[in-house]
Amino acid sequence: MVDDKSVTMTHHLGVDAGGTSTRAVVLDSQGRALGYGRSGSGNPISAGPAVAATSLRAATAQALAGAGLRGSVISTTAVAMAGGSSVTDDPDVADSIRDALVSTGVTAGVSIEKDLLALYFSGTPQPDGYALVSGTGAAAVRVRGGEVEAVCDGLGWLLGDDGSGFWIGREMARAVAADLDGRGPATALTPLLLAATASATGQKTEVSLDPGSVEPQHPSSDQNPLLREIVKHVYALRPVQLAQYAPLAFEAMSAHDAVAENIVNRAGQALADTLAAVVIPGLDGPLVVGGSVLVNRQAVRDIVGGVQPHSPPAPAGEARAGRPLVIVPDGLVGAAVLALRNAGLPVDTGVFDTVTRSVRRLR
Amino acid sequence: MVDDKSVTMTHHLGVDAGGTSTRAVVLDSQGRALGYGRSGSGNPISAGPAVAATSLRAATAQALAGAGLRGSVISTTAVAMAGGSSVTDDPDVADSIRDALVSTGVTAGVSIEKDLLALYFSGTPQPDGYALVSGTGAAAVRVRGGEVEAVCDGLGWLLGDDGSGFWIGREMARAVAADLDGRGPATALTPLLLAATASATGQKTEVSLDPGSVEPQHPSSDQNPLLREIVKHVYALRPVQLAQYAPLAFEAMSAHDAVAENIVNRAGQALADTLAAVVIPGLDGPLVVGGSVLVNRQAVRDIVGGVQPHSPPAPAGEARAGRPLVIVPDGLVGAAVLALRNAGLPVDTGVFDTVTRSVRRLR
Repeated sequence: MVDDKSVTMTHHLGVDAGGTSTRAVVLDSQGRALGYGRSGSGNPISAGPAVAATSLRAATAQALAGAGLRGSVISTTAVAMAGGSSVTDDPDVADSIRDALVSTGVTAGVSIEKDLLALYFSGTPQPDGYALVSGTGAAAVRVRGGEVEAVCDGLGWLLGDDGSGFWIGREMARAVAADLDGRGPATALTPLLLAATASATGQKTEVSLDPGSVEPQHPSSDQNPLLREIVKHVYALRPVQLAQYAPLAFEAMSAHDAVAENIVNRAGQALADTLAAVVIPGLDGPLVVGGSVLVNRQAVRDIVGGVQPHSPPAPAGEARAGRPLVIVPDGLVGAAVLALRNAGLPVDTGVFDTVTRSVRRLR
Repeated sequence: MVDDKSVTMTHHLGVDAGGTSTRAVVLDSQGRALGYGRSGSGNPISAGPAVAATSLRAATAQALAGAGLRGSVISTTAVAMAGGSSVTDDPDVADSIRDALVSTGVTAGVSIEKDLLALYFSGTPQPDGYALVSGTGAAAVRVRGGEVEAVCDGLGWLLGDDGSGFWIGREMARAVAADLDGRGPATALTPLLLAATASATGQKTEVSLDPGSVEPQHPSSDQNPLLREIVKHVYALRPVQLAQYAPLAFEAMSAHDAVAENIVNRAGQALADTLAAVVIPGLDGPLVVGGSVLVNRQAVRDIVGGVQPHSPPAPAGEARAGRPLVIVPDGLVGAAVLALRNAGLPVDTGVFDTVTRSVRRLR
């Protein structure tokens, strides 16, 4: 029996190459995770092909070392990244990914998979269903027969990503600017953002959560010096870095700030609209959700949870009948599932549970 | 009488240094414009100090040549630019402005004035009143005793500029993305933007104004190729360049497109809010408006026209009682007024009318 197993056992590599970090796992053909690795940004678009390749190599080498295996034993590899195989239309990117893996001894063919498909398969082994992500960006997919059938949003910070961390951060910064400018209502977001930007620039500022505590300087002066600070700070960032301030919106919302509540509710509604655009009546699988905004925020999930095929979203807090909602931390388990599937190995509930549990133990 | 005049006559230079173009006028102490010049961008922040200095020099040299005068006869100069004197806090910028003027022979002291103050004085000689601008950006000022007393917005595309050409262009591009993505309603903006981006990239596309003529590809395909084109085109622009598409919103609005009407109405409301933040009951001067969105669009002016001190804006189309609304093309007349004022010359209604009429004749 042991001999028999060792003869048929193959090894597989799943990599989730994200914008913030890259995670890799080596597993056997039964779905048991044997080694895990983690490194920096693996997104060739945002970080550049060289940085992405370095991250890919580091995470993979670490996972192989953890498993005590050489790269040459890997028979299939799945690398999940934003855009999926379309990113490798650029031959430089495709070459850098292949070279990075070859440098770790992995010579097996590599499939580049959509990050949203990997996210989906991190939550379920079922071939049909939906995934919705809201991290720095936001997007939804419908999956049928194990493939992405429809995508909605994921259009980036300027054209889309409605309800994402960037979207929330931008709406928040604009609301603070309007408050300090005398155009918008007073909000607890103002002292929170001022404290965050002051600490980012090493200044010492005392702030209060009382929305009225930072007085707009109109009509007494030409321009508010606090507003000048915010302007200076925000324009020194890359726009997507506004996503880092999204947690302040949830903080102010907990303190029942009406402006923050409005922003979070609109974010939830935007995500519900994005999901609704891919949901169709004939396809009733699970909904897998990921990204910091959906993973950490019950309030947003409640709004999204109301989405049904061809029906308006239910009010916040109301349970969605039927479709299970699965929260996943990232796309690593799904990348592993895709690597197994690429080897022709069936991933049933048993194998899926083995992958999920053994990956969780390793990290 | 003629001899008497020639003894007391002085000469003055007004320059309106804008982001798109720079205009200069040389005038005598009675407010008669004698020479006019025009060149490229004069904004040291957006175009860089070197380009701005070149524009300043070219427009000034042209105005002096038109007047048949040497630069040495100029006794006061006012240069209007975004930010006013705060832009010359940067010594490089201050030096480049002074050097540019000296190179044309102008050795008189230069005052750097806020572009919004020059815009205001392009519409009225009265010391108290308001100005509102919506071009690429948007801002309002309250003027008291001939000085800016309060500013609202003008915070740039990411944090503010609500109701500006950029704001309208961005809302429009997002609405088109949502339409093609299946998240938002069908809109006539979609074929208009597709035609505009196709002509920008030299492609030939047949489009119809019928909102339903561009079908969202969901649920039948992974991603809409038209959407991919829009994404590619928009992210190749600098964000503020989205302002170039603002006219399409007005075009679709004329065809009674509901999405475009909503965007234009929200722009007007945002500008009304910006104006309302500087309007106070005790100060009842004229309202001077400028910038392409306000100059060319009656619909937006109608919404803004409803703003009264401490009262909610009147519904669109309703006449605003009392305060006269003056539409100006730019800040050139105001820069001339400020140059005269800097010489201690009183600018009454008579002198103001002389400046306005003679500047209009020259350009």
